[in-house]
Amino acid sequence: MAPNTPTVRHARRQDAPAILELIRELADYEHELQSVEATEAKLLETIAFSSDDDISPSPATGLPQTEPTSPARPARCLVLFTPAGVPAGIALYFYNYSTWRARPGIYLEDLYVRQSERKNGYGKRLLVELAKEVVAIQGGRLEWSVLKWNEPSIKFYESIGATMMNEWVGMRVDGENLGKLASMLG
Amino acid sequence: MAPNTPTVRHARRQDAPAILELIRELADYEHELQSVEATEAKLLETIAFSSDDDISPSPATGLPQTEPTSPARPARCLVLFTPAGVPAGIALYFYNYSTWRARPGIYLEDLYVRQSERKNGYGKRLLVELAKEVVAIQGGRLEWSVLKWNEPSIKFYESIGATMMNEWVGMRVDGENLGKLASMLG
Repeated sequence: MAPNTPTVRHARRQDAPAILELIRELADYEHELQSVEATEAKLLETIAFSSDDDISPSPATGLPQTEPTSPARPARCLVLFTPAGVPAGIALYFYNYSTWRARPGIYLEDLYVRQSERKNGYGKRLLVELAKEVVAIQGGRLEWSVLKWNEPSIKFYESIGATMMNEWVGMRVDGENLGKLASMLG
Repeated sequence: MAPNTPTVRHARRQDAPAILELIRELADYEHELQSVEATEAKLLETIAFSSDDDISPSPATGLPQTEPTSPARPARCLVLFTPAGVPAGIALYFYNYSTWRARPGIYLEDLYVRQSERKNGYGKRLLVELAKEVVAIQGGRLEWSVLKWNEPSIKFYESIGATMMNEWVGMRVDGENLGKLASMLG
């Protein structure tokens, strides 16, 4: 590995403090710090981590093995380290599904590169690693969402081959509405 | 169970033909039948099914146990049967993740009720079952997408407590762009 190249690997349990720090930085950047309920303990419960010493790739996919995903632990996380070895970016993601194709894919829930480490191509590097993982699992799609007004990001995403899913809008049930829906039919 | 009540359960492997039939009906309804690459074999490889005899619920969640999800098998499926025992609807879904909350959730990829079985509240029943599952896994959100012009559906979804995620737009990399992105950095 060239000395000026960043390293990307699946998150290990000891990365949880750095992951939380980056999540809080992202939230602060978006003026949403008060919305962050994530803690180190919660991350340790909900992310499928790669074990410290198990860096042997899966025979099927060539990817490092991680803890199995489950309803309670659906998330995976890539961590990018600077050439100096400092955690500078994360990509939190989970596996999604295309019914038409009956194939898996990857949904990128959050991508963040520390502000002081921008303009180094780290965001693109994380997206490339995710695209490689989609290919490795014989998946069909890499997907994520972006705020509509965030034109610089949309232009960047389009420059690397993404298309906008303009015809669709997301629907969400959460908070007390979720409990109401769950008990709606008694 | 009252004789005029539908039954909903997690899909078993023997449901694959009925699931495929419903997927193809949905695609035909959307004039997208030519886009369906799903086959029985592919569904059997990519859906985490509940076993025929294992109807004992998980101690943790009270949900029926299914095959473990994995990168290659991320999808789960609920099947709705009419009071006469005929498969009439499906909800294909996977587990997603909220970074802020460090909590899992459910993303509903496709919901379909056979046209001849509409107006019986089956769609709502499937959504209620999914909301129950989100609550059972201590998840935060039930989410899905809808075509923007589909106002009757949007009104129905809002009537059961869903809100539109108007500020966000989906981005997707697939087809040859996916391979290009994967090899973009050599």
